[in-house]
Amino acid sequence: MDETAGFARTPKPPYYAAIFTSRRSEQDPLGYAEAAQRMLEVAARQRGFLGVETVRDASGFGITVSYWSDEAAIAAWKHEGEHTAIRERGRWLWYRHFEVRVARVERAYGQTRVDLRGDHE
Amino acid sequence: MDETAGFARTPKPPYYAAIFTSRRSEQDPLGYAEAAQRMLEVAARQRGFLGVETVRDASGFGITVSYWSDEAAIAAWKHEGEHTAIRERGRWLWYRHFEVRVARVERAYGQTRVDLRGDHE
Repeated sequence: MDETAGFARTPKPPYYAAIFTSRRSEQDPLGYAEAAQRMLEVAARQRGFLGVETVRDASGFGITVSYWSDEAAIAAWKHEGEHTAIRERGRWLWYRHFEVRVARVERAYGQTRVDLRGDHE
Repeated sequence: MDETAGFARTPKPPYYAAIFTSRRSEQDPLGYAEAAQRMLEVAARQRGFLGVETVRDASGFGITVSYWSDEAAIAAWKHEGEHTAIRERGRWLWYRHFEVRVARVERAYGQTRVDLRGDHE
């Protein structure tokens, strides 16, 4: 198993994060899944894209954090055409409620556990 | 249904966010669940705590974002005694890998869907 699957490999700060918190509606699950996948593909092609971490639970509550090199990159992503079109469908169809927060990452650290045998206790 | 259940009710920026991304080990699920609950209770009593949003999927990948009024509040939380003790157990026992990013929220917006009848298409 790759211990770091799902994690964004971000550089040393500073960089930017767009924190998208959402609760799904029950509507149009296939359209949503396709658009969510497409959004990641389009984002990954943008200048300044550093990575993304995304999780949604069975109740439909989710958090997606995308990471960007600078403020100009995050602004360009906001106005990218396909992103804008998909976002409008999300706004009126796929989400009951969402919050977007744009933040400047100032400090970061991480750790992979080396010993997973379970003899720490 | 409360459309905004699970969302943090944060004030107008600027404020701070601690983004904690993690993959659980399979170890000690009961101890983990108890400690996770306890962490939220202790955090909520701290000066400068604004709220928290947390989600983990069935594969064990999760994102928790806690929000804080200022940098001093986030530093005090980092050094709070019970938090420190629980964090050390997490470091060696509960997580395969984690990342922590501290960020200054600069812009934020949200939306609740008013019409959920599904006649938008």
